[in-house]
Formats: sequence, C-alpha cells, structure tokens
Amino acid sequence: MTQPIVISMGDPAGIGPETIAKAWMEREARALPPFVAVGDGRAVARVWDGPIAPVSDLAAVDRVFAEALPVLTVQDAGEIVPGQPDADGARCALHALELAAGLVRSGAGRALVTGPVSKSQLYGVGFTHPGQTEFVAERCGIARDNAVMMLAGPGLRVVPITTHVALASVSGLLSVELIVAKARVTARGLTRNFGIAAPRLAFAGFNPHAGEDGTMGREEIDVIRPAIEQLVAEGIDARGPYPADTMFHARAREQYDAALCCYHDQALVPLKTLHFDDGVNITLGLPIVRTSPDHGTAFGIAGTGVAHPGATIAAIAMADAAARQRALCAAAA
Amino acid sequence: MTQPIVISMGDPAGIGPETIAKAWMEREARALPPFVAVGDGRAVARVWDGPIAPVSDLAAVDRVFAEALPVLTVQDAGEIVPGQPDADGARCALHALELAAGLVRSGAGRALVTGPVSKSQLYGVGFTHPGQTEFVAERCGIARDNAVMMLAGPGLRVVPITTHVALASVSGLLSVELIVAKARVTARGLTRNFGIAAPRLAFAGFNPHAGEDGTMGREEIDVIRPAIEQLVAEGIDARGPYPADTMFHARAREQYDAALCCYHDQALVPLKTLHFDDGVNITLGLPIVRTSPDHGTAFGIAGTGVAHPGATIAAIAMADAAARQRALCAAAA
Repeated sequence: MTQPIVISMGDPAGIGPETIAKAWMEREARALPPFVAVGDGRAVARVWDGPIAPVSDLAAVDRVFAEALPVLTVQDAGEIVPGQPDADGARCALHALELAAGLVRSGAGRALVTGPVSKSQLYGVGFTHPGQTEFVAERCGIARDNAVMMLAGPGLRVVPITTHVALASVSGLLSVELIVAKARVTARGLTRNFGIAAPRLAFAGFNPHAGEDGTMGREEIDVIRPAIEQLVAEGIDARGPYPADTMFHARAREQYDAALCCYHDQALVPLKTLHFDDGVNITLGLPIVRTSPDHGTAFGIAGTGVAHPGATIAAIAMADAAARQRALCAAAA
Repeated sequence: MTQPIVISMGDPAGIGPETIAKAWMEREARALPPFVAVGDGRAVARVWDGPIAPVSDLAAVDRVFAEALPVLTVQDAGEIVPGQPDADGARCALHALELAAGLVRSGAGRALVTGPVSKSQLYGVGFTHPGQTEFVAERCGIARDNAVMMLAGPGLRVVPITTHVALASVSGLLSVELIVAKARVTARGLTRNFGIAAPRLAFAGFNPHAGEDGTMGREEIDVIRPAIEQLVAEGIDARGPYPADTMFHARAREQYDAALCCYHDQALVPLKTLHFDDGVNITLGLPIVRTSPDHGTAFGIAGTGVAHPGATIAAIAMADAAARQRALCAAAA
C-alpha cells in the first residue's frame, strides 16, 4: 500500500472543494494516485453530487479511492455558502492545512497539496504568516528564506527572487546573498523533486535588455552577475542575466530547467500567459513535498460549477512525481 | 495600380535582406501586396540567389513584382559581409530609411516597413535619434511623445508606457499626463489602423496584484487609476488597472484590444512569449503607416540562411491592412 496524497480543501466557500471533486472524477483518465481531501465533507457535498467516502484515518484511503472521493473531516465549517467566506470557514481551512501538513510530515501522507485559501479571511481568525508556504515551512522547521516558491507548468518553471513587495522596492532588496540562497535551493529542488541531475538555471535581468551593459540600470552588473559567478564557482550551472523578454518563447525555454526572475510579475506573467489553467506552485527546500494549484479561491465563480480542475490535477500529478523521485533517491542512498 | 509598400533593408550585414527575400518568396502563399526593398541590392544578392529586379522609381514595382524582388538601390554599402557591420553599411541603412520614409510621406509608397538596424553602428555615422521610430516621427513632423510604439501579434497588442529606461526609474516617470497621452494615441491608432470602432484598452498595474489596494505600492492609486478615470471621462473605454500576471492568457486577451503596460518587460515579455517569430512593431500617431519586424539585426545568424521571415511577413501584412483601413476611412470621410 502506498500512502495517499493529502489535499487540504482550502476555504470551503472557494473553488477548492469543487476542483478536488472534479480531479477525483479524472483519476483514471489522468492516472492520479489515491488522495484524500481534508476539510469539511459538507463543502464538497454542497457543490458536487458524486460519491464521498468519509474516512477517519489515511489507511482507509487506498481501499475506497476507486469508488468514492475520500474525505477526512477536521471540523464543522458552519454554514457553507459558496462565494461567501466567513470566519467558521476560515477556521476550518486553517485546521485542515495544519492537519494535512502534519499527516505528511509524520509520514502517513506521501505529499501535501494545499487548496486555495483567503488570506484576509485567515488573518481574521489569527493566522499570522504571509501565506500557506511560510506556514508549512515553519511546521517543517525550515526558515522562511530557505523555502523557495517555484511556479511550474508543462513548459516552464519560474522562481521569483522577490515576491509580494512594491516593485519600486525590488532593486533595494536584490542582493548577491539572496539570489545565491534562492538559486541553491532551486538547483537542489530540481534534482530532488524533478529528477534533473544537473539543473540549468537561467537568470533574467532586472532592466530592459538586461541593462545593456549598464546603460539602463546597474542591477545586472552590481548584483546579478556576481551572484551568477559565485554559483558557477560552486559548480551550479547558472547562466545570464538574459533580457527577460527573449527568455520565454518555446525555443528559449528549451535551454534551461528553471528561470530565476527578479520580481513577481517577471516570473508570473510568462508562467500564467502559458499555463493559466495548469500552473502549479511547488515549494522547494522543504523536507516534505508540497504543491498547490496556482490560483486563488475564485469566490466569484464558486458554486457555479465552472471551476477548472486543471491546476489541481496538475498539482496532484506533480506532487506524486516529486514524491516518487524522492523515494527513488532515498532508496538509492 | 496600387502604390507599393516600401521596405528599408536595415543594416546590410544583418538579417534584413534575407528576411525580405524570403518574404517575397511567400508573396503568393501569404497574399502579400507588391513591395520594394530599399538599400543596396548587393546585400540581398549576397545571401539569396533568387531573382532581383532593380528599379529606379516605384511605378515599376507593380510590373515586376510577380517575377522578381524589386530593389531600389540608394547607395553602395561598401564591402558587405553578413554578420560584420561597418560604417559603410550603417550609412546605407540610414539613407535607405530616409528615402523609404520620404517615399511614403510623399505618397509614392503606401506604407513603410523598416528593417532592423544596429543603433550603435548608426550612432557611429552621426545618427542622433533614440531609434528609427523617433527618426520617422521627426520626418513626419510629429513630436516624439506623440508617436506611440505598439507591439502586435495575432493574439495580443501591447503598448509600453515607458520603454528603454532603468526599471528603478519607471515609478518616477509614470504620470497621469503621460498615460493619458499614450492612451489617446493608442485608442485613435486602433481605430485608424485596425478598424476597431470602439477600442477597449486594458491597463496593467505596476505592482504585484496591481498593488492590492495600496498594500504593495501606490502607483495604481496615485497615477494609473486617475489616468483611467480621465480617459473614461473623455469617452475612451479604459479599464483596470489589472494584475499583470492574469492579463495575458487566452481568455483574458479576448477582453481588450490593447494592453497598456507600465514598463518595457511588462509589455514585451508576454508579447514575445506568445509571438517571438511573428511580432510586429507598429508606430501609432503618425500620418503614415509604419511597421517593422519585432527583432534586431541578429548579426550572429546573418548569412547562414536560417533567419525566420515570419515577423517581416507579418509586418508587411499589417502595414497593408492598416493602409487599406486608412484608405477606407479617407474615402468615407
């Protein structure tokens, strides 16, 4: 018996429950491994009339998965109205995340997939982390800066070196230390999770045309290039900095395994342009495998039945592949 | 007889001559209208063994176009070695641009397509404009700021509000006046060149998630939103600011006719990710139609025969369509 993949449902009023149910319906077509949804089973039943199998421990998942969606209910989420989040729902989402992470940390679950939450709702019930990534990192005993967010689709993997900060502050935040730290975790993560023996990292410049030798900004000369030189000296295949606009077309993407980008939109614009419906967020640097669909709660469409399960399916498949890769390496060690 | 489209060859040592010749070979398959290449005919003969018809005035183009590529030689470009630009080549490129622009400005040519030049080579022979766009604008008697660069492919049109400046300086350059000016020219240009009666303009935010109500930067609140409000008050369909990362996937792109972006890479990353081989640069706000393939001289591959003519073909087709649209409106006026 293989341990199941554990999926936290996210906000019960968001599209998490629906996308998980739709992913289960695709389990055979997409060859998905057994998984269990953690949250309030009623959130799924509210938006889906397929078979649900309540389970109380993960050992049951493998037995029921072929016939019904296994659901582990952590707590009552109160009155669940799709599209209308409330504090009871946020508490349920938080406890589901906590339990799901714990189950995977303990080894009962094989990998963690987190459903979309509303940060503003979570903040209202006492959540203090910037996001789920930092929460999971802390539960794993990993310093925030060592947990690296990668966004990945079938044709592109990107790592934003800075994330949710004002763009005007990015130049001041970029440092050789930060870039080197992120790149090291990225390189190791590509090996551990994707089985890439010698990962090729391509760095985007910060300025138009990567600054054109300092005529349009000096971040490339002062920070990015020295970071790349240090990485190369450590034996990491680090290249660039390249003009960002010519890095993301099909032929360019064949030349690297991950693009390291200076700021949020530089990474997220190409990723979502190409993979809006099947982008996956994977956290590198953790002792466990953790992925999530790269979209939000989408309260605006929750309950209408139109939510696209592509990203959830991709997150489950990526978590499965990463867990297999890690098991392989562990067996070989 | 229709006037031909006039194409300046660009640097004779770049891929301009080859892509023009390859475009001529596709004239029937792609239903391209008659065009003439302006430069040194030997630059084409150096990289292509197809038929060339030297012409001395544009009236001859229509007559010979079916059987040979019409070439109007402006001056001897010296010794032409593909991939090795020199001052003689730069002078020829500059005179070709000047003559081609003049022929279209005078009405002898129907639209202008400019081949790729090397700015550093041009600067060496006395060129003082930031680029060909500003040169053509000046020859047309248009102030630089009123000539707007749009990059367009089959599935996306973008306008960068700021262009070749350090990214850290963009926040300080964004102003309500600048955004409104660019947007007005864009809206009018979409009508005149693309026949879109009521153009829909979508504005990208500057910060991640468009600033999330000021929590990650205030450019949206202080500058972009007021500009949009002013445009709406003028009757222009202006929307946003939207988070840039969710603006460029296929369904999102259906919602607008052009995306106005705050900085170079915000516009160019999605455009080149989607349309690396067939992106066109079209200048809005000019009395003439002017397009160019959205790539450089590519000295590294010049003369090897691998240059992709897609962008040149697209630039000719777009120039043709824009000229037809203008003629239609002129006839209706």
